[in-house]
Amino acid sequence: MPQKTDHKPRARTGSGEARWGHALALDATPQAQPLYVQIAEAISADVRRGVLRPGQALPGSRSLARDLGVHRNTVLAALRELEKQGFLMTEPARGTRISEQLPVQPLAPSVRARGLADFPVPRAPSFRVMATPPGHFTLLGGVPDLRHVPTAALARAYRRALGRRANLGYGDPAGSAALRAGLATMLARTRGLALTSDDLVVTRGSQMALDLVARALLRPGDVVAVEGLGYRPAWEALRATGAQLVPVPVDEHGLQVDRLAALAERVPLRALYLTPHHQYPSTAVLGAPRRLQLIALARQHRFALIEDDYDHEFHYEGRPILPLAARAPESVAYVGTLSKVLAPGLRLGWLVAPSPLREAIIARRSVVDRQGDLVLEEALAELLDEGEVARHVLRMRGLYEQRRDFMVERLREIFGETLSFTVPRGGMALWARVRGVDVDRWAEAAASRKVLVQPGRLFSFDRRARPFLRLGYGAHDETELARAIALLNQARHSL
Amino acid sequence: MPQKTDHKPRARTGSGEARWGHALALDATPQAQPLYVQIAEAISADVRRGVLRPGQALPGSRSLARDLGVHRNTVLAALRELEKQGFLMTEPARGTRISEQLPVQPLAPSVRARGLADFPVPRAPSFRVMATPPGHFTLLGGVPDLRHVPTAALARAYRRALGRRANLGYGDPAGSAALRAGLATMLARTRGLALTSDDLVVTRGSQMALDLVARALLRPGDVVAVEGLGYRPAWEALRATGAQLVPVPVDEHGLQVDRLAALAERVPLRALYLTPHHQYPSTAVLGAPRRLQLIALARQHRFALIEDDYDHEFHYEGRPILPLAARAPESVAYVGTLSKVLAPGLRLGWLVAPSPLREAIIARRSVVDRQGDLVLEEALAELLDEGEVARHVLRMRGLYEQRRDFMVERLREIFGETLSFTVPRGGMALWARVRGVDVDRWAEAAASRKVLVQPGRLFSFDRRARPFLRLGYGAHDETELARAIALLNQARHSL
Repeated sequence: MPQKTDHKPRARTGSGEARWGHALALDATPQAQPLYVQIAEAISADVRRGVLRPGQALPGSRSLARDLGVHRNTVLAALRELEKQGFLMTEPARGTRISEQLPVQPLAPSVRARGLADFPVPRAPSFRVMATPPGHFTLLGGVPDLRHVPTAALARAYRRALGRRANLGYGDPAGSAALRAGLATMLARTRGLALTSDDLVVTRGSQMALDLVARALLRPGDVVAVEGLGYRPAWEALRATGAQLVPVPVDEHGLQVDRLAALAERVPLRALYLTPHHQYPSTAVLGAPRRLQLIALARQHRFALIEDDYDHEFHYEGRPILPLAARAPESVAYVGTLSKVLAPGLRLGWLVAPSPLREAIIARRSVVDRQGDLVLEEALAELLDEGEVARHVLRMRGLYEQRRDFMVERLREIFGETLSFTVPRGGMALWARVRGVDVDRWAEAAASRKVLVQPGRLFSFDRRARPFLRLGYGAHDETELARAIALLNQARHSL
Repeated sequence: MPQKTDHKPRARTGSGEARWGHALALDATPQAQPLYVQIAEAISADVRRGVLRPGQALPGSRSLARDLGVHRNTVLAALRELEKQGFLMTEPARGTRISEQLPVQPLAPSVRARGLADFPVPRAPSFRVMATPPGHFTLLGGVPDLRHVPTAALARAYRRALGRRANLGYGDPAGSAALRAGLATMLARTRGLALTSDDLVVTRGSQMALDLVARALLRPGDVVAVEGLGYRPAWEALRATGAQLVPVPVDEHGLQVDRLAALAERVPLRALYLTPHHQYPSTAVLGAPRRLQLIALARQHRFALIEDDYDHEFHYEGRPILPLAARAPESVAYVGTLSKVLAPGLRLGWLVAPSPLREAIIARRSVVDRQGDLVLEEALAELLDEGEVARHVLRMRGLYEQRRDFMVERLREIFGETLSFTVPRGGMALWARVRGVDVDRWAEAAASRKVLVQPGRLFSFDRRARPFLRLGYGAHDETELARAIALLNQARHSL
């Protein structure tokens, strides 16, 4: 057993003092930890480095205090701290020593730490969402005009929901009962869905709905058909389960269901993911013949339809088409969102699915994030109940339709035959075929002029270039759209 | 080609009128869809059922209107709707007919619909979070007293964040820069973590942090060690990746690291999930010797440490022990939450992990729910910056410590040797060994008296009974605790 005088801790040697003094100087800012903590840390660091060894005696608190230039109480506090953490042991007869229960030589200083940074981490999905840089024109389809969001009404409803304190604790992973009831009423009125609040799960935007359906339904090796031009974040969610995705072509009438039928004959399909209302990105509306054929196919081959109805409200030519879920609820997992209706940042979506899939989804959801933000959900339920959401939709539908018409007219005027497109019957974007210009270079040149547009490549399953531009008209008023289109024209002429 | 008079649609026959009349009667409530929609739906339903066939002519709008007892304009609107949906085609010379592009006999009425309800859905996790029923005493560890949450300050900050409209759109999946900066400062001051805001990912509570780490790090077949008494929702997140969990025993000093060392010799461990600060559920503090041994083991065998530090702030005996992440950041994925600090319902947690694991986690997060609620995150950043959170922690730490002392005294007084426990050094619950009473029956009898307590079985890896009760003291004041303990005593005597 080493004697007290034989094994002076480093703190009492010249170099030890220097090192400690350095550590104290380092942390002398107002934000620094208390002195006693810094001393305790320095001692424990020396233990970890093997400078102080198990069983080794510490000098007395008075001499330590003198060496360090601090009050003795500070040293005593540091020693108590270290004792509590198990670094020190104090026995009346033997004074204070480094604990003998520490592992001997826990770390030789020469051993290079090998940690998570060296781990073979599985490849991350290639998709990462980024925010729009400020000061840009965002002609990105699907970004609503956030200047019109009724923030004052929402803030009031949020304050009331928060003040009730009823939703500050743990709650139902299926979502707030009030919001589910409000959404069920809205979906029944606007989409012909026959459902009660128990058929709904509230999610963090449509993305979580897609992720949950994927995780509940799919297993590695399952085959899932998707639109050959489509929504990559959904593909990533499906793919993350180990499912194999197979693209099916789309044309100006949406998904080519004949091609799907041929595929279903060849391979056992587990599911089809699609956007039948306003096909993403082409905005094509899937007509009744294809819809009926699709439902019959799904029943015959027993695959699930994952229907993403992301902007149902914004349909300008007559009434929106009823979802597949209204015609074949037993075959469909129906996904919707308030991202376009109100704002993407609220992250409020939903999922309608038949039991037991719905039960499996709720159970899985409790593992993903336990539950939603029930305070926000109650606030949104209030806005739904009061008709605030319906009024906002009406207002914005009118605005977006005007912007669509303006955009169509101006694009035809300025770009003539360079852009050809069908006037979209709904949504916040149009899908234009580009002639005689390299779309990828055009999109880049536009971005350098702070106009963001999406070339066809972003939506193609194989990531190859496609001679299309997706041009959103939701986020800007007509003056801004005119300016953005002028810049887009400049960008074209710069090539 | 059928002639108009040869194939009268069902609507003109007596039974057709009766059926349609029925459908209209069904939907005559004020919430009903417009009449024209109901008519269109009835016709399209007959097409789907095969009652009306492709190519078949429809009666004229006047006779339909007369038969249905509605204005002719209503019928015309219905026909326009059906035409738009592709069900009808109108040619000047031939009148209105059912579209010939519809699939012939889309559904024989005798074919029973087979849908998602019949699908073999993979088994859902057995864990499902439920809300606490109202009017109960919740002696559940980890539920804070929500009556003290600074809701007014939060509502104000939320209103300001919402009013700025800066976070209503798409944003950074790693979380608000302001909140990440605020949390980084807090973690550096209170936990000795050396980090910047770029080292943090903001998550929906600790559950999402655990789920994301699991999904980024684990692959099917990976072996993950967990505490043999522990936190089931974390296990479910780990297990959902296909990883195999192996329990390691815990004792009154926390995880038995020697047992872990023996395990690591036998099987290649990919990770260890643990709660070293206040072991869940036993509240044991993992001491320095075991911590150092653990870090050395993790480095030697190259497994990751997933450190769940769920209630770091509420430590009553001296300073909290520094996390493993402060000692070996390269080996640790560090998980924390504001659930105990403020309220579980806010779903605000974080994750600190070395790159590239952190990058993989952010990419995966964008697939799970795209991004967090950046408005709420900005509001919480404001509360952190203003010191509101720190003041709240100080206040609640004092309260919880008093409640702990009250609980300890009262339990000893009332239950004597029936309950034996170490006074917890932190947290919001104590872990008591029960002698001479069946804990499961006791917990049931208490629940029937509206006192919720958790028996050992809920925390054991094998779900077998354990002679322990976890008794939370965070959610109630001393008067309420006294009442709950009296009811718990009644429940014991009722057995």
